[in-house]
Amino acid sequence: KVMQADAVVLLGAEIVDFPSTWVKPGAAVIRCTPTLESGSVKCIVIVLEITCRGHPGILLGRVLFANVVHSCGRWLQEQQYQPWHLRSLKLQPLTPVPSDIEISRAQTPKSVDQLAEEVGLLPEELEAYGRSKAKVRLSLLDRLHEQPDGKYVLVAGITPTPLGEGKSTVTIGLVQALTAHLKLNSFACLRQPSQGPTFGVKGGAAGGGYAQVIPMEEFNLHLTGDIHAITASNNLVAAAIDARMLHEATQSDKGLYNRLVPSVNGVRQFSPIQISRLRRLGINKTDPASLTPQEVSTFVRLDLDPSKITWQRVVDTNDRFLRKITVGQASTEKGQIRETGFDIAVASEIMAILALADGLEDMKRRLARMVVGTSRCGQPVTAEDLGVSGALAVLMKDAIKPTLMQTLEGTPVFVHAGPFANIAHGNSSVLADKLALKLVGRDGFVVTEAGFGADIGMEKFFNIKCRASGLRPDAVVLVATVRALKMHGGGPNVSAGAPLPREYIDENLSLVAGGCRSNLRKQIQIAHLFGVPVVVALNVFKTDTQAEIDLVCQIAKECGASDAVPCHHWAQGGRGSLDLARAVNEAASRPGNFQFLYDIEMPITEKIRTIAQKVYGADDIELSPEAKDKIDYYNKQGYGSLPICMAKTHLSLSHMPDKKGVPTGFVLPIREVRASVGAGFIYPLVGTMSTMPGLPTRPCFYDIDLDPVTEEITGLF
Amino acid sequence: KVMQADAVVLLGAEIVDFPSTWVKPGAAVIRCTPTLESGSVKCIVIVLEITCRGHPGILLGRVLFANVVHSCGRWLQEQQYQPWHLRSLKLQPLTPVPSDIEISRAQTPKSVDQLAEEVGLLPEELEAYGRSKAKVRLSLLDRLHEQPDGKYVLVAGITPTPLGEGKSTVTIGLVQALTAHLKLNSFACLRQPSQGPTFGVKGGAAGGGYAQVIPMEEFNLHLTGDIHAITASNNLVAAAIDARMLHEATQSDKGLYNRLVPSVNGVRQFSPIQISRLRRLGINKTDPASLTPQEVSTFVRLDLDPSKITWQRVVDTNDRFLRKITVGQASTEKGQIRETGFDIAVASEIMAILALADGLEDMKRRLARMVVGTSRCGQPVTAEDLGVSGALAVLMKDAIKPTLMQTLEGTPVFVHAGPFANIAHGNSSVLADKLALKLVGRDGFVVTEAGFGADIGMEKFFNIKCRASGLRPDAVVLVATVRALKMHGGGPNVSAGAPLPREYIDENLSLVAGGCRSNLRKQIQIAHLFGVPVVVALNVFKTDTQAEIDLVCQIAKECGASDAVPCHHWAQGGRGSLDLARAVNEAASRPGNFQFLYDIEMPITEKIRTIAQKVYGADDIELSPEAKDKIDYYNKQGYGSLPICMAKTHLSLSHMPDKKGVPTGFVLPIREVRASVGAGFIYPLVGTMSTMPGLPTRPCFYDIDLDPVTEEITGLF
Repeated sequence: KVMQADAVVLLGAEIVDFPSTWVKPGAAVIRCTPTLESGSVKCIVIVLEITCRGHPGILLGRVLFANVVHSCGRWLQEQQYQPWHLRSLKLQPLTPVPSDIEISRAQTPKSVDQLAEEVGLLPEELEAYGRSKAKVRLSLLDRLHEQPDGKYVLVAGITPTPLGEGKSTVTIGLVQALTAHLKLNSFACLRQPSQGPTFGVKGGAAGGGYAQVIPMEEFNLHLTGDIHAITASNNLVAAAIDARMLHEATQSDKGLYNRLVPSVNGVRQFSPIQISRLRRLGINKTDPASLTPQEVSTFVRLDLDPSKITWQRVVDTNDRFLRKITVGQASTEKGQIRETGFDIAVASEIMAILALADGLEDMKRRLARMVVGTSRCGQPVTAEDLGVSGALAVLMKDAIKPTLMQTLEGTPVFVHAGPFANIAHGNSSVLADKLALKLVGRDGFVVTEAGFGADIGMEKFFNIKCRASGLRPDAVVLVATVRALKMHGGGPNVSAGAPLPREYIDENLSLVAGGCRSNLRKQIQIAHLFGVPVVVALNVFKTDTQAEIDLVCQIAKECGASDAVPCHHWAQGGRGSLDLARAVNEAASRPGNFQFLYDIEMPITEKIRTIAQKVYGADDIELSPEAKDKIDYYNKQGYGSLPICMAKTHLSLSHMPDKKGVPTGFVLPIREVRASVGAGFIYPLVGTMSTMPGLPTRPCFYDIDLDPVTEEITGLF
Repeated sequence: KVMQADAVVLLGAEIVDFPSTWVKPGAAVIRCTPTLESGSVKCIVIVLEITCRGHPGILLGRVLFANVVHSCGRWLQEQQYQPWHLRSLKLQPLTPVPSDIEISRAQTPKSVDQLAEEVGLLPEELEAYGRSKAKVRLSLLDRLHEQPDGKYVLVAGITPTPLGEGKSTVTIGLVQALTAHLKLNSFACLRQPSQGPTFGVKGGAAGGGYAQVIPMEEFNLHLTGDIHAITASNNLVAAAIDARMLHEATQSDKGLYNRLVPSVNGVRQFSPIQISRLRRLGINKTDPASLTPQEVSTFVRLDLDPSKITWQRVVDTNDRFLRKITVGQASTEKGQIRETGFDIAVASEIMAILALADGLEDMKRRLARMVVGTSRCGQPVTAEDLGVSGALAVLMKDAIKPTLMQTLEGTPVFVHAGPFANIAHGNSSVLADKLALKLVGRDGFVVTEAGFGADIGMEKFFNIKCRASGLRPDAVVLVATVRALKMHGGGPNVSAGAPLPREYIDENLSLVAGGCRSNLRKQIQIAHLFGVPVVVALNVFKTDTQAEIDLVCQIAKECGASDAVPCHHWAQGGRGSLDLARAVNEAASRPGNFQFLYDIEMPITEKIRTIAQKVYGADDIELSPEAKDKIDYYNKQGYGSLPICMAKTHLSLSHMPDKKGVPTGFVLPIREVRASVGAGFIYPLVGTMSTMPGLPTRPCFYDIDLDPVTEEITGLF
């Protein structure tokens, strides 16, 4: 690296990002011809053309630089994949296990610069946000283009109780074991938590006990602002929709056209986004004066049908009173009132796009084609029609970069995209997984998490995310708890806030066996439908007995799991997950046989039926008349070959939250079908699914506080 | 600095923040006794007590370290105020002046680490957010406690046209001139722009031409997330209000009490925030079992009157359809519908608190005492009563730190708090100003900006912000343009989007003179009411003639300005503002005579009348019956001695936007009066003031786009 040099040599197009600190003001900037190629370098002859700054046409001279050969070689060396030299952080677990925030605070994280350097990131690929988190630039994918991917492991779960069964802690414990103890490179790819649950019932999502991402308060609060960027983008679209309807309702074609294509310093021209709309309308003109009155009218009027607007506003707060609202009631809105609602921010289509995009260009295209509603003559209206999609890409330009953090044992983690696999697809991002697969190297592991039970989170991971990314998973870790297994075996109701019934505290082998032979077996079978080996990870609680633990592992293997092991990461950190790490290493080394569940070209109804029957175990599906109409409409619009993202309760394999184990003999009711055209899926709603959680009487926030002197946070968990 | 040491010496309590990277895992951590005192150090004897890690009671030995004396001395040296050694960035202005984004992109900013070091910040006081912006820790105020403040200059303006007259560009041009050209230390303190106007009509707020904050796209987009944090905090309060009303409406006292004070592992206790509420209710008990049924009922029921909730939700988007809405219309909310609305995020009381707080503790206290509504028996209900104020402090813990950026010429800028001085107080933050006043040193300058015309932004700066901070301004820069002066002199209407009438393009000395002798003279007089000298800065446009420029400067001086100078920063950068810089240096060096306009203990009505008569030139005020009732209520509640934050149009000295110049013979109508108890002011609404802007037919976003390959943004201005 050249510090404060009088002249700087740029090696062709590879150096896109050129730090100003390298060069003195006014120093010569020199571009190389020819561009170097990567590979092993013995001897290089470089002809430099030195030009006058600001006047690239004026050639000051040609020089053959001998003394840059060494630094060029070193530069090329730095561009290569670097083996990791990770310093793990020592853990000394205490008994009893302290609170999550106490454990997190007791461990001092490495600086994120150091962590990045240890895993082979270049300084210019990092954008630090404070000391312990940083965004990683996507240029990494180009640099390590030829590097083979590591192994790809998905963590999913059996159908959970409402308390959750610890998929995040298993994920974090697994990477701590792999990297800090077995010295195998690994990355965990987690989702950024929503502030709704963090301040509501659930608390944070940074793991728990001695398997956490640190600092957990950074993870659980604003992080690097991705969800805020999604909220801002989503709500800009919403404001644009209502404002446009008002303006169309109150202005003539001519008035609209004069405002949309104004004369600026005597010149009138279309902006690029307006040219795109003209192209879609089949108007191949670029001179605003040349449009016929009919063309002007077609161009200026989106003619949105107020009753067919599908775009909702969002907040990242559990605000149940915004589920259904009436807007436009101020007199300034001239009576254009309509009913609409807010969703939780992570359910925004823009979150799904962030998770599925494979780069800036792809994200921008997806944002442009998002459908926000339908015109009165039945045409879909997109974000690009509203003229807003370029601004959305600008608002999302930083959010697309995954955030690097670390576990309690100093191993790397990417945090990206969002949760809620019941009402969204709820997976970590394609980009985070891809970056991590390059960084870990051929023999390393990327452990990524899917939301809720395998029937929804994992099914969407395979059918939607893997289809978008082209990546193929090598193994599935299926998380189970004795508690959830007992519930599926016939135990009494488990609910948040109420004390656990005795059955869940005392040994009860028959309930455990019942759960294993029903829900656990079925979830293993679902993974096998996709041809992927399954390792069952039993997340051990302190009330579990050895006989219960042994029984789960035994039956899981009988049901076809490659292996089944107890995990003690919560109490012991990575050391408690060593058996899991070894089992995953073993399972992932076998040759894969991955396949999708359905062909993308199957009719929409057949795709829904396939998921309902093969995954959920339904006898059939039943479409409401509205759902049928919507499917017909989407087929007509050419959206028929999109994959399916079911919105279904996570508390049962069926649509009925109280049916545990393996429900049978039911018909799955499809109440409504929506399309997320930008994200790229059809979105059936099964039964009644709320897209906005509420706050309980005593939300988590009652205990959350900040010491103004030490700046320590209490009450986050 | 000790890198990767086997032992680390901690110099008492000064080192609060101890980077993990300094010490090897398991290394000894050694604390010094006694604590060193600052001052000039010749020789130090330090007795070290080496204790066993994790067992501070076990003393391993005492050692006298000779070889730390040098590093201790160096450490003390580093803690002292450091003279600046700023490397300014060279500007080579082009003609014609390119677009703002092109100018911004053509200049490579210094890394923010380097900038921080140049102005005497320590590395541990910086939290970088990417390469070109960083939050600065408030611990700086302790470190430089004894350092005298620099000079304090306010930039205000005459009554503007709807297009704005360039206060931000004048501010930035002035610091570029002071620091890059006259070599005097200076800081500009600017407000973070709202995304509403950025994507609406106005565009960004990073300055313009060759007087800008760079990178302007960082400045204009999410920056370091402060406004997003305000939005999240504000809306958490709103969600808590409606959820609490629902829960109180549907549960018995006993049910509420059991949920609010649940038994956890057999133990039932109040959280600290609940103890606070009990104290305020006069219930001095800590055992939940000891409350009488009457006390339980008082404790659990906030009993909010739905018609008297003053808290609104916010978004940072110009979404006019949210001005008045009905919430709670989903069946799950059981008919608890009510009318409410959204404000633009920067109008949130939490933004006002951010701007006025003098530290974390003060911010937390202010957040706790925010009044959200009134109970059915007339008692104010606070954020602390809702149990949410600790969580708000946690959400706002990073937002309280100002963001460091730089101008086009590499001089430092703080960005903090928000705009909209018409509906809020609209000043940069007390904390940014205080940090900057320490950093610039005794002879340096802090140039801070107040929103809109001097009648609102400056009046609030003096009466609210200076009262809260205890800081005293040394000079006012009053920004004028020939355009605005012509308008006040009787020129035709100026409106956004429409071409400027000829009067504004051709020379017209009589209109200019009319404007100078009316609005300009009055605004100078307003500054003099506070005893502060005024320098008039004429922001020169390319259509201004020399005769017009000379006339403005001549009349301004006749009207009592200390000086009046033309400014060419837009076309020339700091070099174009050298005359202004010299004039400000001269004016600020005179002894000050600052005084407040009104005594804080005057009755509310008298304070409003004083502002109306002395500042706006009204004959009197007229209170609506609602306003009178509210004032009586606030007096009864003990809010009578708060300062006044008028919500008034910025387009006229009066409440009538079309009355230009110096309106006389009017009575100011006070439609409503609100209290921002946490921020600490009474908030009268003059006439009809919208707290939510709208989008025009063709918002700025039509031109905003991102190149997915180069990542360059176009269309921001």
